[in-house]
Amino acid sequence: MREQAYRDPVHDFITITDALLQQLIDTPEFQRLRRIRQLGVTYGTYHGAEHSRFGHSLGAMWIMHLICERLAYTGVELGSGVRETALCAALLHDIGHGPLSHALERHLTPQHNHESWSAAIVQEDTAVHRILAACDPALPTQVAAVILGNYQGPPYVRSLVSSQLDVDRMDYLLRDALYTGVTYGLFDLQRIINTMQIHSGQVVVAAKGIVAIEEYVLARYFMYWQVYLHKAIRSQELILRAAWD
Amino acid sequence: MREQAYRDPVHDFITITDALLQQLIDTPEFQRLRRIRQLGVTYGTYHGAEHSRFGHSLGAMWIMHLICERLAYTGVELGSGVRETALCAALLHDIGHGPLSHALERHLTPQHNHESWSAAIVQEDTAVHRILAACDPALPTQVAAVILGNYQGPPYVRSLVSSQLDVDRMDYLLRDALYTGVTYGLFDLQRIINTMQIHSGQVVVAAKGIVAIEEYVLARYFMYWQVYLHKAIRSQELILRAAWD
Amino acid sequence: MREQAYRDPVHDFITITDALLQQLIDTPEFQRLRRIRQLGVTYGTYHGAEHSRFGHSLGAMWIMHLICERLAYTGVELGSGVRETALCAALLHDIGHGPLSHALERHLTPQHNHESWSAAIVQEDTAVHRILAACDPALPTQVAAVILGNYQGPPYVRSLVSSQLDVDRMDYLLRDALYTGVTYGLFDLQRIINTMQIHSGQVVVAAKGIVAIEEYVLARYFMYWQVYLHKAIRSQELILRAAWD
Amino acid sequence: MREQAYRDPVHDFITITDALLQQLIDTPEFQRLRRIRQLGVTYGTYHGAEHSRFGHSLGAMWIMHLICERLAYTGVELGSGVRETALCAALLHDIGHGPLSHALERHLTPQHNHESWSAAIVQEDTAVHRILAACDPALPTQVAAVILGNYQGPPYVRSLVSSQLDVDRMDYLLRDALYTGVTYGLFDLQRIINTMQIHSGQVVVAAKGIVAIEEYVLARYFMYWQVYLHKAIRSQELILRAAWD
Repeated sequence: MREQAYRDPVHDFITITDALLQQLIDTPEFQRLRRIRQLGVTYGTYHGAEHSRFGHSLGAMWIMHLICERLAYTGVELGSGVRETALCAALLHDIGHGPLSHALERHLTPQHNHESWSAAIVQEDTAVHRILAACDPALPTQVAAVILGNYQGPPYVRSLVSSQLDVDRMDYLLRDALYTGVTYGLFDLQRIINTMQIHSGQVVVAAKGIVAIEEYVLARYFMYWQVYLHKAIRSQELILRAAWD
Repeated sequence: MREQAYRDPVHDFITITDALLQQLIDTPEFQRLRRIRQLGVTYGTYHGAEHSRFGHSLGAMWIMHLICERLAYTGVELGSGVRETALCAALLHDIGHGPLSHALERHLTPQHNHESWSAAIVQEDTAVHRILAACDPALPTQVAAVILGNYQGPPYVRSLVSSQLDVDRMDYLLRDALYTGVTYGLFDLQRIINTMQIHSGQVVVAAKGIVAIEEYVLARYFMYWQVYLHKAIRSQELILRAAWD
Repeated sequence: MREQAYRDPVHDFITITDALLQQLIDTPEFQRLRRIRQLGVTYGTYHGAEHSRFGHSLGAMWIMHLICERLAYTGVELGSGVRETALCAALLHDIGHGPLSHALERHLTPQHNHESWSAAIVQEDTAVHRILAACDPALPTQVAAVILGNYQGPPYVRSLVSSQLDVDRMDYLLRDALYTGVTYGLFDLQRIINTMQIHSGQVVVAAKGIVAIEEYVLARYFMYWQVYLHKAIRSQELILRAAWD
Repeated sequence: MREQAYRDPVHDFITITDALLQQLIDTPEFQRLRRIRQLGVTYGTYHGAEHSRFGHSLGAMWIMHLICERLAYTGVELGSGVRETALCAALLHDIGHGPLSHALERHLTPQHNHESWSAAIVQEDTAVHRILAACDPALPTQVAAVILGNYQGPPYVRSLVSSQLDVDRMDYLLRDALYTGVTYGLFDLQRIINTMQIHSGQVVVAAKGIVAIEEYVLARYFMYWQVYLHKAIRSQELILRAAWD
């Protein structure tokens, strides 16, 4: 077993033993994420927020891994194909983001959002595509389907990648809180994972986890007020877009 | 009183009321530090270490501010000229750093290290220079002297900016630890500040602070082993330099 | 200047230079608080919550100190008599608590709540009373008035000791969160202090602090759900009271 | 599967599914640990250190659990008898401690240290003994042997419970650091666990873990200087013993 350990400021060690995931991380497409700022021009207001989509993508995949471990522990075994699909989709969900993430997304390529670019990178002739296809010829299509929201497998896979309670939001709230220094984004990740269950193919949370969910929802609210919708940051985005046009 | 608050991941709020410091931060020379990576190519190994010299320079100035407050509280009033010199020198000590900080320092301009560039920016015809001179015509020379190590004022000013126990090291250990996720760089900053004293013009630490000093020295040792001298990072630096030559 | 430093798990160093406060802490009445559990029988459910009213009382006084410093910094100087009264009232507000704090309060002495006991300790012939009176003969009466809610001085003093936003709640939320391990009680203390102002004799918070206040209010809500009203803890309290009767 | 979750200030959730461990925790002997202060009279100097042996014993067992999980993950399966023995010994290693832990240990019963009392509780007719014996008649003897240091099973079991690098020290350094507020006791627990291996029946740490081990050793050094050998605490212990004699 070859183990790759990434020391992460949010999750401490992200430990990867799956050769497929390691190969995907080493592609030029994934390494490109090191040059995409997670929060666009936000660093102009919160100077600590200089982090990239690279760490966030690792983090989203890691939370998916923790959820799979927890589900397995409670007796819900994901089929290995489903598990691979979920982990790859979590890792690659943002691979289509362009410069400064959302700040320019609708301006650079108005016809395409970052999800459609992510799906394209997964399905067209790229290093990412070749690695996925070499593992299983059906994998690129399935991963792209999860990203685009038309996956035909168990519905919880899609909802764990993109919904009101998904690995994307769970990672970015914790990560953006750390880097901006605004602690309002913190919530009880472990409690949420521990109370997750699969019910009729959907992810649900046991009643005793409700306060953790409330806290998570409010963490989002606070981060929107304090960071994502901050007037100085929105102004900078407008200036940036005006400069581009 | 106009107050500028910077939310910092390391120090929480860095609050600036001094108009001179606010003006210096807003210069193009200082804002340029947002594009200089604090740890060069280290982010290739510790993916969280994407932070710039901007936050570090604010942090070093802030620790200097905390030390001045503490000294005043213990009855040691720095003259206002000395205090301004110390704060400006802490803020500007890295303003001459080039791309990727130390990784390319000796290759881009072999005859000049970053201190000599910092001193040049302070003394030549720049926005930084004009703001310092407008405050006090002697200030640019004094700040440059502190940075270059030939300041004729109280010796503790120089040693607080650059010595074995200075605001530069104190900030970068805490900051690099946070961003890399390697907690070994943490130490008891508050205890060190609280036990600092001026004795015969030198900064000394009261005997009861000795364990905090030991911990600080060992934090440096650990960060060198775990981060600054990490074999993969040193290799990347060698490759970068070879590519440059 | 003799300085007494208390290392606190919540506030790091609590540093006391005021001889009056030091003497009050050293009285038998205040030292007794070391044997009063802050959260009564809660440790039976959250095993970490074994902390006493001693640390909380120091912490409440320390937050009052930080607020006074901030107000002074913004140009609002409390008269020294008012400042002393506020600090002593914060330190002594819980000195009348009996065994297991609230769990038995109404059962041990049904006619008296802990505030009336606190006021009695301040005004009757105790070490606390003698120290306060030796400092200023009017001080015991004023401190007791703040605790009982009929203080005739500036209204913000009373509201900082007991209101919807007071040093008592601010300390216990942070402290109980730390000791129980339930992070939901955390909030942005520094931001609240930094945005506090005195307006028409009342404490108000500047508009830009509103999100910090919302977070504080919700921290209370979460702590009530997760800890203070926890069904197992409430059950233990009922059993304890039944055993007493 | 019935799962018992203990929210811990040090390890967040300690989750127990093993019915044997749950039953042991619920014995009067183990619950008694709630009334034994982990650090004796230390709370007189570090007021936050009011924690008991109860949380520490849970924590030591939890670190043992994490190590077993890690060893299993690297392909080293402990036999179930060995694993049970290790977990029970970690949980029960301090069950013989008397009032104020070490402060009075040699004075109350000079002929017996706490290990011999722990072994007696495991082997004599107690609730703990009956629960262990009902699970496996050989278990009480084996657990006592680990505690007393004459266990005939794999040597790493004994060394994980008591050696220079054991679950006891690893938990108490982190725990005492948190409660005293002295951060010097922190170290990289996850890194140590991740680099542990079994070699010739002994626990060893891979070469890449050496810095984490150095940090751990120094954390002990710092905690001894700052807390365990603190002059005021040692004085209080001497007074306590003199009062007893």
